Amino acid sequence: MEVGPRDGLQNEAARISTDAKIAFVDRLSAAGLRHIEVSAFVSPKWIPQLDDAGEVFAGITRRPDVRYSALVPNMKGLERAQAAGVTDVAIFVAASETFSQRNTNRTIDASVQTSREVALAALAAGLRVRGYLSTAFGCPFEGPVPVERVVTLTRQLVDMGVFAVAVSDTIGVAHPGQVRALLPELLAAVSPTDLALHFHDTRGTALANVLAALDFGITTFDASAGGLGGCPYAPRATGNLATEDLLYMLHGLDIETGVDINAVSDAALAMAPHVGHPLASRYTQTR
Amino acid sequence: MEVGPRDGLQNEAARISTDAKIAFVDRLSAAGLRHIEVSAFVSPKWIPQLDDAGEVFAGITRRPDVRYSALVPNMKGLERAQAAGVTDVAIFVAASETFSQRNTNRTIDASVQTSREVALAALAAGLRVRGYLSTAFGCPFEGPVPVERVVTLTRQLVDMGVFAVAVSDTIGVAHPGQVRALLPELLAAVSPTDLALHFHDTRGTALANVLAALDFGITTFDASAGGLGGCPYAPRATGNLATEDLLYMLHGLDIETGVDINAVSDAALAMAPHVGHPLASRYTQTR
Repeated sequence: MEVGPRDGLQNEAARISTDAKIAFVDRLSAAGLRHIEVSAFVSPKWIPQLDDAGEVFAGITRRPDVRYSALVPNMKGLERAQAAGVTDVAIFVAASETFSQRNTNRTIDASVQTSREVALAALAAGLRVRGYLSTAFGCPFEGPVPVERVVTLTRQLVDMGVFAVAVSDTIGVAHPGQVRALLPELLAAVSPTDLALHFHDTRGTALANVLAALDFGITTFDASAGGLGGCPYAPRATGNLATEDLLYMLHGLDIETGVDINAVSDAALAMAPHVGHPLASRYTQTR
Repeated sequence: MEVGPRDGLQNEAARISTDAKIAFVDRLSAAGLRHIEVSAFVSPKWIPQLDDAGEVFAGITRRPDVRYSALVPNMKGLERAQAAGVTDVAIFVAASETFSQRNTNRTIDASVQTSREVALAALAAGLRVRGYLSTAFGCPFEGPVPVERVVTLTRQLVDMGVFAVAVSDTIGVAHPGQVRALLPELLAAVSPTDLALHFHDTRGTALANVLAALDFGITTFDASAGGLGGCPYAPRATGNLATEDLLYMLHGLDIETGVDINAVSDAALAMAPHVGHPLASRYTQTR
């Protein structure tokens, strides 16, 4: 699951031109990625970096075998997404109360309620819906997050009819010990195909976490081409796991992905001048 | 096994003062690291960065519970090491013929012969000897390296009387698929306690490799504080696995190391101004 155009660019300080975003998405689909989160229909006051979501969706060349999704925080976002012809949307809930309130000005309960409303409306309109559970491995304000809460919220998201919940390490603190502790609990409540894992490489553990999760039958992992997207809670640090770093490991494990690693790396390198800093992807740094 | 002062600084372009090196080693031992490779007694023409090996050994404060070792490429190096009061030395052999000849101007066979001579002399003098098998996971010139050669050379090193062979991914290409393919072959020939693994994080896979190796009973891993040491074959890329990144994962797995992660990170941060570039360690980037 490629999240660079959305989660990556949302956490970049630079404003990227709409044309560069469109070219980025088209390069990623040409590389073989089959699910790309393109943008978010959120208030431009929250995330000015993605205020051109409609234009980006209008400009990309849609391949029939690729799903293009958008994050939508509320009904207004859903309406804008539908107006832009979006067929796949993503909703989100935080697992930390403090993070939820600081990040979205909503309690977790209010967030679940809004997400349910959006999910039901989207499903009724024939859209596919994905869920994100953020700060599932730790919160920048509260620290550890109780496993029971992660399990309960994941189950609630699945019950809303989402096709997968991306259990997300928003601040990049997860380590394989946590993955091995959390997954048995989660898999007692939902099936492996209900889950995706979304790791950030902030402490260098993202690939080790993926390796640990593969043992539990998890087959969907979020990643961002080039490792685009920093960590807002540690300004010098790395954010999303880089797609090409993930592919390097998966291909080494003889896991078929259908994705051309160097084409992904090229897509990231074409974006690099726009973000204005070297790419975090270790694979791409060797090229 | 902390290799920052030797393998790290050897691959840094900057010349570091002897005083800074001594302070670095002393901070690392104070952090709880119990085996530190301090320097190398090699020709200053080869590695000018380490031409003050004797002075560094003379200047460090030796703790009784810490082993301080030096790399020695030949009998002359061993003699210099002994004159400096070194009690632990490391010899090395490459698993790639082209790398061996380009890096040390010796064939693999000649290198094995020299190493045996050095090991026997060192053991006879009451020293402990460690072996490195470099380019064991791939060669910058030849690409893949046959597993049988890695097994044969590891066995030969063990037979010389070394206490461990550090099977080394000199260029940072190893992935967990390779670890899982190589270790069963190696462990048919030697015991897990004969082995250490030395990964570079060039492609971001080092921690995943460690996680894969832990499953095979390997308990010794080489790392460099701060991730010091670049990759000479990819100038923009990262080299050694950072000690604090390794500790973050091991501690997350509830593995007792006796090492203070923040003290290691502080040691690296104190060295950072001397190397003149930001540290590669992802853990330290979050501090």
